[in-house]
Amino acid sequence: MRGILLVLICLAALPATADEGMWTFDNFPAARVQQEYGVQISPAWLDHVRLSTIRLTNCTASFVSPEGLILTNHHCVESCLAELSTKDKSLVELGFAAASRDEEQRCTGQMADILTGVQNVTDTVSKAVIGLSDIAANNARKKTLTTLEQACEQASAKAKTGKLQCQAVSLYHGGQYFLYKYKRYTDVRLVFAPEADIAAFGGDPDNFQFPRWSLDFSMLRAYENGRPAKTPNFLRIKFNGPNANQAVFVAGHPGSTARELTRSQLEFERDLPLPILLMRASELRGRYIQFGKTNPADDRMVQAPLNGLQNGIKVRRKELDALNDDALLAGKTEAEDKLRAVAHLDPDPWHAIEAATARERVLYLPYTFLEGGAGFISTLFRDARLLVRGADERMKPNTERLREFSDAWLPTIQSELYANVPVYPELEVLTLSFSLERMREWLGPDHPLIRKLLTKESPDALATRLIAETQLDDVKVRERLWGGGKAAVDASLDPMIELARAIDGDARAIRKQMEDEVEAPIAAASARIAAARFKAYGTNSYPDATFTLRLNYGTVQGWVENGTPIEPFTYLGRAFDRATGSPPFKMPDSWLRAKSQLDMHTPFCISTSNDIVGGNSGSPLLDADGEIVGLMFDGNIHSIAGRYWFNAQNNRAIALHPAIIREALDKVYGAKSLLKELNAQ
Amino acid sequence: MRGILLVLICLAALPATADEGMWTFDNFPAARVQQEYGVQISPAWLDHVRLSTIRLTNCTASFVSPEGLILTNHHCVESCLAELSTKDKSLVELGFAAASRDEEQRCTGQMADILTGVQNVTDTVSKAVIGLSDIAANNARKKTLTTLEQACEQASAKAKTGKLQCQAVSLYHGGQYFLYKYKRYTDVRLVFAPEADIAAFGGDPDNFQFPRWSLDFSMLRAYENGRPAKTPNFLRIKFNGPNANQAVFVAGHPGSTARELTRSQLEFERDLPLPILLMRASELRGRYIQFGKTNPADDRMVQAPLNGLQNGIKVRRKELDALNDDALLAGKTEAEDKLRAVAHLDPDPWHAIEAATARERVLYLPYTFLEGGAGFISTLFRDARLLVRGADERMKPNTERLREFSDAWLPTIQSELYANVPVYPELEVLTLSFSLERMREWLGPDHPLIRKLLTKESPDALATRLIAETQLDDVKVRERLWGGGKAAVDASLDPMIELARAIDGDARAIRKQMEDEVEAPIAAASARIAAARFKAYGTNSYPDATFTLRLNYGTVQGWVENGTPIEPFTYLGRAFDRATGSPPFKMPDSWLRAKSQLDMHTPFCISTSNDIVGGNSGSPLLDADGEIVGLMFDGNIHSIAGRYWFNAQNNRAIALHPAIIREALDKVYGAKSLLKELNAQ
Repeated sequence: MRGILLVLICLAALPATADEGMWTFDNFPAARVQQEYGVQISPAWLDHVRLSTIRLTNCTASFVSPEGLILTNHHCVESCLAELSTKDKSLVELGFAAASRDEEQRCTGQMADILTGVQNVTDTVSKAVIGLSDIAANNARKKTLTTLEQACEQASAKAKTGKLQCQAVSLYHGGQYFLYKYKRYTDVRLVFAPEADIAAFGGDPDNFQFPRWSLDFSMLRAYENGRPAKTPNFLRIKFNGPNANQAVFVAGHPGSTARELTRSQLEFERDLPLPILLMRASELRGRYIQFGKTNPADDRMVQAPLNGLQNGIKVRRKELDALNDDALLAGKTEAEDKLRAVAHLDPDPWHAIEAATARERVLYLPYTFLEGGAGFISTLFRDARLLVRGADERMKPNTERLREFSDAWLPTIQSELYANVPVYPELEVLTLSFSLERMREWLGPDHPLIRKLLTKESPDALATRLIAETQLDDVKVRERLWGGGKAAVDASLDPMIELARAIDGDARAIRKQMEDEVEAPIAAASARIAAARFKAYGTNSYPDATFTLRLNYGTVQGWVENGTPIEPFTYLGRAFDRATGSPPFKMPDSWLRAKSQLDMHTPFCISTSNDIVGGNSGSPLLDADGEIVGLMFDGNIHSIAGRYWFNAQNNRAIALHPAIIREALDKVYGAKSLLKELNAQ
Repeated sequence: MRGILLVLICLAALPATADEGMWTFDNFPAARVQQEYGVQISPAWLDHVRLSTIRLTNCTASFVSPEGLILTNHHCVESCLAELSTKDKSLVELGFAAASRDEEQRCTGQMADILTGVQNVTDTVSKAVIGLSDIAANNARKKTLTTLEQACEQASAKAKTGKLQCQAVSLYHGGQYFLYKYKRYTDVRLVFAPEADIAAFGGDPDNFQFPRWSLDFSMLRAYENGRPAKTPNFLRIKFNGPNANQAVFVAGHPGSTARELTRSQLEFERDLPLPILLMRASELRGRYIQFGKTNPADDRMVQAPLNGLQNGIKVRRKELDALNDDALLAGKTEAEDKLRAVAHLDPDPWHAIEAATARERVLYLPYTFLEGGAGFISTLFRDARLLVRGADERMKPNTERLREFSDAWLPTIQSELYANVPVYPELEVLTLSFSLERMREWLGPDHPLIRKLLTKESPDALATRLIAETQLDDVKVRERLWGGGKAAVDASLDPMIELARAIDGDARAIRKQMEDEVEAPIAAASARIAAARFKAYGTNSYPDATFTLRLNYGTVQGWVENGTPIEPFTYLGRAFDRATGSPPFKMPDSWLRAKSQLDMHTPFCISTSNDIVGGNSGSPLLDADGEIVGLMFDGNIHSIAGRYWFNAQNNRAIALHPAIIREALDKVYGAKSLLKELNAQ
């Protein structure tokens, strides 16, 4: 208990210790790394790694050849594999290997972003909100960020660098603002993926576990103008991997952490979002599993959404465990009291946040179901809402729009809407029926919106009718409605469009309440806390993860679990020992056929002390030379609590060892040209 | 916050205030009731009500005629209705009305117990454990209770009263021990039940809600020697019901409360059992719902288990909400510190309980899945375990057995095993597959037992094979194995018997650990706390609910919800207004046909301030004359927190009004002979 408390106080109030920290590239503690590990991380090293590291839609990746070849996780391309599948042929199940570049398959909607530069705009944002009320400041801040993004994109389009994506980023919960500038590749194609049985060997039971044997890698390629992109910045792979205790680095995009949140914000997460999400996700898991038992085609159809859902359940479950540790909350109080004592802030920002979260408790359910979309889980409803809102928002000046419809985001929305991705009506009915039924449960049958939607039809009947009658599954219909703008959308009699239109007023109203009564006061108070923290403790700290590029350091090491030391490497032989013949412990036929050729002593997975979370999937694990010695794909079970704190005792990241990638490409898949491109032969 | 804190401290440390309290009949605060409500509750009143109130398997009921007619809830006979149904004809859906007594249908396994007397045996139990270690005391206590039960049953068999069921009861968590003596009716038959659409009108969305319109009543009849039992003690029904603010009483069997638990015990409930149960139950709910979509027969099959499951989810969800209220835990600490300060106990029993719950956290998962049965949810597995364990236990002397296999319980076990209840193999596979899969998830794929069971087969394949091959669904097979004892069971090659046998050693081992390391120290410490409480505050308090007979008092009243007053009565007309035509808001055809005859002003449900919990379902709501003015069937949503504390502001019980029972029997169902037996005409 005491150890955890100490760690907590450190992270909340003082510079991080041990291998903790998700550092921005411009504030990386190179001196500390030099001192602790005797390794020098130069500005050139940082630039090269930054320009070789890719942000995918929900993951990280890196260039591994000068011809645009990309290394990432299998689970990061699962949605692409599902898109390229049919009811009868699942690429998730079968894997994919392009025999030549001509056979590389476009992943619709997948983009690859490279961070080319950052610009600190904190002063501009601060000046825009001086003297304003919380609500006015919240609105002014958003307008300012949109204006900055717009100016940045316009300037880049005229420069010789070519057009960049400019995204405003808030760090330290409003303590600093930056413009992040990305070079974007919009044509990304699938090159190679192993079968799910080996890529996710151990399945959900083994997820977040170590020792581990999951061949969780895949390869993509960036294209420009229909040809493989020229990518002079790329990372070489050292196929022999790292040694135990060697210093290693992870570059990537951790998605979200909550280490700077206040006690009242953590209590809110513990009491409402986490238990409610767990209940809803568990029920949906049950519906998916039972649906999959109907026949093999349904089972294939359900695998990809089920995998994502089960991963989420495990994460939320361990986050709830973390928040149920009263020592964590006691430590928060202690850290808050300590900063309060030195900062003398009046009015007290922690009290302001507490009042705002009390309001959030009241708004949470209607917000989640109406605006958050939990009441309408359906790809076609998502499209309908994008069309209805997009039509309204695009009529407004850029800075007056909801931020997600600002000009910077419109290409992304359009590419989502125009993607010709298969939609399975049976699954759409399943998820929509489920979500309508739960919305009725949580909001109550006498809620006005429920009375409006479900007076004559059951949730199941309504879902079935909507999915049967909507034409939004036809990409041409979506193109016509998006292209036609407000006039086309207003004239549409499509029942899904009608539903999105019918609830949009209610959804916008609850969102406005949430923004004004919760988001605005929290933004104002958080910025004041961040400023007080900088003043008291300096800027030698790292910000909470925001799916922006970070670098962290650590070593190859295991940990001690219940008194038993866990070694940092696993080997191929044990995977065959654990195979049962039934998924998720089934070795694919390709591996059984190649078994006699394989070296059973090939290292398979690696445990390291790097500080990572979801979003870091696909990150390169680098050595001091800036070369790849592993591919991050998971953390151990203790790493999930890393959302709230970093426990150096047992928080471990899990990487795939490059030797098993070479062994697989060579002896199982015979992928000679890829090996050649990777200089592995 | 302050109000809740005060309530909590009161209930934990001082005599209860307001209408709180689940009083034993021998310690009912008649003087306080006289003072507060001007109503005299005489010893004769108490005896008459006690001898008219029935304990069913999971519910309460009461005799309402001298010929054994029983009034209880519809949801209390749902399992009986399901037993009497077939795949193609669901009595849950259709309801049941015996046209004559010849048509009354036996509910297999249903028993009706009347509490004829209680005997305080605290001294005997205390003497048996003096000077023993916690573990030795725990074992000695159980043996003493079995010995007392056995002697009591043998004595009653020789007395002219006839054989009684004697059950030892611990009150105040070991503060007192009693022998409860019951007259048992083993032949209980179904007389009347309305259709589920009206009995559970509003379904899960309306469950634990008020205002309410659920006709949640049914009728049974006790038989003796093949004829309706003579029951001179019965309760008359006042069909006009009660007035607002009238004093009312509830006699019944509240199942379980946790108001006397320590802070560390509540934290344990909050952190492990509640979230884990909610996740497991939510997933099973999803599987059931999706299974029911296959076809109408599957939908019917799944309704009864789904209803029970959904009720459980709502209860646990609100219990978790209650425990997430940090004020509750802070109040516990305050109350514990206060008693600690006056009692000077050394060693400190609260610390002993904290240490035991720390151990319980470690043992919880294997205990729950292996011994608690969460890994093997299946009626046929339950039967297999009863047969395997019963065979072993019956070889031992009565006092050496696991308590649930002592002579007092053997008739109950035999009647469960010999009940010819339909078992649906599809549902058995569903629940067994689900529970095996979750056991693998929670214990981990490398747990020795998981390796033993699931090395070659997936959970689904194992479940499918076991259910297909076992013959335990044949009542003759079960009779032969139970009758044949250990020799027959040992010789059996039935795969379900083999499974139960294979895991029994592991299950007994984890149970032994739980008993020695958790139950024993908690029992010792709880008894010391109870004694300290009696010494400091007297015995003018009520014990936690233990599914034994209790009486409480209150008034007919609503409450204020978010500033809006809720009236204590609902009326029939609004039920028709709320009907949507789709379940669970569908009025049955019988009611639509009778609509023009019905008085829309008939009172339907009643809200009262009585302190009840699960187990009180079917309890009579009584007036000062000891006559029925309502039938309890639920509480409002705030009543669920009553597991941990009674909040007089908003905790309300919900009863069915007798006028709607008469209106239904008369105008919808034409049940003239029942109305005559009830003196309603």
